Amino acid sequence: MGTITKALELLTHFSPSRSEIGLAEFVRVTGRDKATLHRHLTELEENGFLEQHPTTRAYRLGPAFLRLAAVREAAFPFRALVRPIVMELADAVGELAHASLLQGDALSSVFHADPQLHGTQVHFDPSEILPLHATSSGVAVLAFADDDLRARVLSRPLPPFTNRTITDPETLRQLVAQTRADGLSRLEGSFDSEVTSQGAPLFGEGDRVVGALSVAVPALRATPDRMDDIARRLRVAAQEASRSLGARAADLAALPDFPKAAQA
Amino acid sequence: MGTITKALELLTHFSPSRSEIGLAEFVRVTGRDKATLHRHLTELEENGFLEQHPTTRAYRLGPAFLRLAAVREAAFPFRALVRPIVMELADAVGELAHASLLQGDALSSVFHADPQLHGTQVHFDPSEILPLHATSSGVAVLAFADDDLRARVLSRPLPPFTNRTITDPETLRQLVAQTRADGLSRLEGSFDSEVTSQGAPLFGEGDRVVGALSVAVPALRATPDRMDDIARRLRVAAQEASRSLGARAADLAALPDFPKAAQA
Repeated sequence: MGTITKALELLTHFSPSRSEIGLAEFVRVTGRDKATLHRHLTELEENGFLEQHPTTRAYRLGPAFLRLAAVREAAFPFRALVRPIVMELADAVGELAHASLLQGDALSSVFHADPQLHGTQVHFDPSEILPLHATSSGVAVLAFADDDLRARVLSRPLPPFTNRTITDPETLRQLVAQTRADGLSRLEGSFDSEVTSQGAPLFGEGDRVVGALSVAVPALRATPDRMDDIARRLRVAAQEASRSLGARAADLAALPDFPKAAQA
Repeated sequence: MGTITKALELLTHFSPSRSEIGLAEFVRVTGRDKATLHRHLTELEENGFLEQHPTTRAYRLGPAFLRLAAVREAAFPFRALVRPIVMELADAVGELAHASLLQGDALSSVFHADPQLHGTQVHFDPSEILPLHATSSGVAVLAFADDDLRARVLSRPLPPFTNRTITDPETLRQLVAQTRADGLSRLEGSFDSEVTSQGAPLFGEGDRVVGALSVAVPALRATPDRMDDIARRLRVAAQEASRSLGARAADLAALPDFPKAAQA
């Protein structure tokens, strides 16, 4: 692991429920040398990627993220484009909806909306990086991604998150083929044992897959009728989002003959 | 400059008007060795901090910023808190208003609103890092920051941005003292020769200065009456924002006897 990666990797330890991390805690969770860690943290802090609590000296994610997120959005307004679509979808189905962007070999969450209509709801952590093999969003992306990405993911170990996560490459390959045929993925208890989710690919310029839109439902509410209703609305929302993102053939993903043609 | 800083510094070259930068352009603007640059860019890309255009291979800021900005905002909702206040202020004064956060020894822009009521308007670049000595926001922060920050800024060269930027430490020290007395800074043509701006400090928990709120006006419209009207509304908006951010004595900054007491 390069120095830069080692430093950037420290940033992934922050989450909404762990918003401040002290040096001692970083030593504990990373198992790295204290002096090196301190040097990395200091460089991140000097560049605005971290800031320190004035009295405890614990580290927090810094203001640079707000500025650089705004710069990215000014040029490639993904969040602004998908936000109203995700909100409308969540309201229409009464469940958690979220949009994510392909980041290397995983998905980065960008926006989620939860109408909070029910006593139980899917807990969503926006800091979590979504693995491609274990989430409905990820499988939807894999199904329409280029062969390189698919081959890379299928050739590596597939870590389990629950006892229902697909860890066998051949089973995953079949699910991916099925998802291409359906234009939509459905996973039950794969990333969280109590959650069933469906994902649809999002396409951008040049009709490349750029991310996914998904709806996650507590398994108890995932009746066949509800899942079908969600699937129908999810398809429409994903096509709308893809058109906004510059895809031309976005709606093809929902046509029964597209996957075969694209796969040929 | 450490390796991490060298890599992170590459990210500062992106702006809304320069949203994609190729390897050759990075070589040109940084003057660095191509092989090292490529290694740094690759590490940033592998961690989601950059992504590459599918055909041109030019680099863009990556999706990690959207995710990490959301994680920061979930814990410390600065943008969400100041957004409505900045929008209301911009509407009330009919001019560009913006909020920024202290990032090391400069300010990072977080949100701006422009009612676009006039034929001419201040051009605002959200990717720009605002220097403390040359902007009304920066001087407002310097006036209420701790002595260390003030001493550090005053001891270093003060680069000019226009022929009216204050580059003499003694003159800056006087302006800072005046700003403490007024609770508000006013700079004419200091960062952009055609812009007059006023800035007020934003305070957070423990009544520490965390950033600034400001209104920027084309010099032609900066009549004394308008500036006084803006100053009045800016004070109120900054106090409101500071209270939202957890400051207790936020309104003290506007009282005539606060600065003297605080300075004593």
